[in-house]
Amino acid sequence: MVGATLGSKLVQVGHEVKMGSRSPDNEKAVKWSKENGSRASYGTFADAAAFGDVVFNCTAGVASLAAVTSAGGNNLKGKILVDVANPLDFSRGMPATLTVCNTDSLGEQIQRAFPYVNVVKALNTMNCVVMVNPSLVPGDHDVFICGNDRQAKEKVAEILKSFGWRSIIDLGDISAARGTEMILPLWLRLMGHYQSPNFNFKIVR
Amino acid sequence: MVGATLGSKLVQVGHEVKMGSRSPDNEKAVKWSKENGSRASYGTFADAAAFGDVVFNCTAGVASLAAVTSAGGNNLKGKILVDVANPLDFSRGMPATLTVCNTDSLGEQIQRAFPYVNVVKALNTMNCVVMVNPSLVPGDHDVFICGNDRQAKEKVAEILKSFGWRSIIDLGDISAARGTEMILPLWLRLMGHYQSPNFNFKIVR
Repeated sequence: MVGATLGSKLVQVGHEVKMGSRSPDNEKAVKWSKENGSRASYGTFADAAAFGDVVFNCTAGVASLAAVTSAGGNNLKGKILVDVANPLDFSRGMPATLTVCNTDSLGEQIQRAFPYVNVVKALNTMNCVVMVNPSLVPGDHDVFICGNDRQAKEKVAEILKSFGWRSIIDLGDISAARGTEMILPLWLRLMGHYQSPNFNFKIVR
Repeated sequence: MVGATLGSKLVQVGHEVKMGSRSPDNEKAVKWSKENGSRASYGTFADAAAFGDVVFNCTAGVASLAAVTSAGGNNLKGKILVDVANPLDFSRGMPATLTVCNTDSLGEQIQRAFPYVNVVKALNTMNCVVMVNPSLVPGDHDVFICGNDRQAKEKVAEILKSFGWRSIIDLGDISAARGTEMILPLWLRLMGHYQSPNFNFKIVR
């Protein structure tokens, strides 16, 4: 759902998008491609990684390292990988926990596993419908980005602006992913409190 | 500093406050008491726990269980303990980590260790000057509370209102302390980013 939502928005703002899946003809990817016109295509994770200049990791956090490995380090070399995933573990019941946190993060794990990829953690602190339509939440609110490469972050910020984002907070290097991933337990509590995922964080100062 | 700041505010809004320390005549506690008039006194952790109807834990998170143990379960029995602390570990360098998180929290540890105390986690997501003066940060922003006892939370909410808080978000039982403690890594990153602790979170919806 996150991949389809982001993919559709990227097509809408003018990009060509290839939706990657484990299999070359994933049913949902085929359907998504048909619904999104000539700029939308599908293939394996490796096909998508080879196709894109900017690659979005929208897989479940627990599967992300395997998915990026399957996409192939060579296909991703020198490219930007926008890591939208959260390492959430719902298997142990509620409240959900993180499979990695505190002294490490999923963003850092991916960056360490693929040192020649420019990992930018972004958009993981909100629901996917808010990611691509920030005006769904009224007023000003924030999207956090972090990563080791300044130019990669600038490129991602451009994409975020094309989605409608006005307040983009650059938290520094990829280790800041610990912070943005670790607010998920609070995010999940708030979703329960409001009975809706359509909210976002704003830093007031 | 957190204790002195909260203690002074509580005196200002009309309460009698006893500042507890490890020793009966801690130099800073004596000085604080002198500066805050006849409603301010000092003593050991146990003296403070016996004195108060509502007790604030403003110790460093790594020392909190020892401090509350030293305050004495019998002195705290049936009372409200407002846990303001964060289990931050700065000893391993930056970025700071948490000594407990994800599957547990300091708030839960204290509640488990003292089942006859009504622990309310509150105010731990901001700097202490903002805790007692929310108008230092312009506009609307939020304070989170959680705890197992509804009446205890209502009493704490009253105190927060007397500090000037308008938006108090009740996240539910004490396990929500995981969420509010786990935003500290992001809070610390933001403090570095803004070079100021005078900011706060707002949930926009």
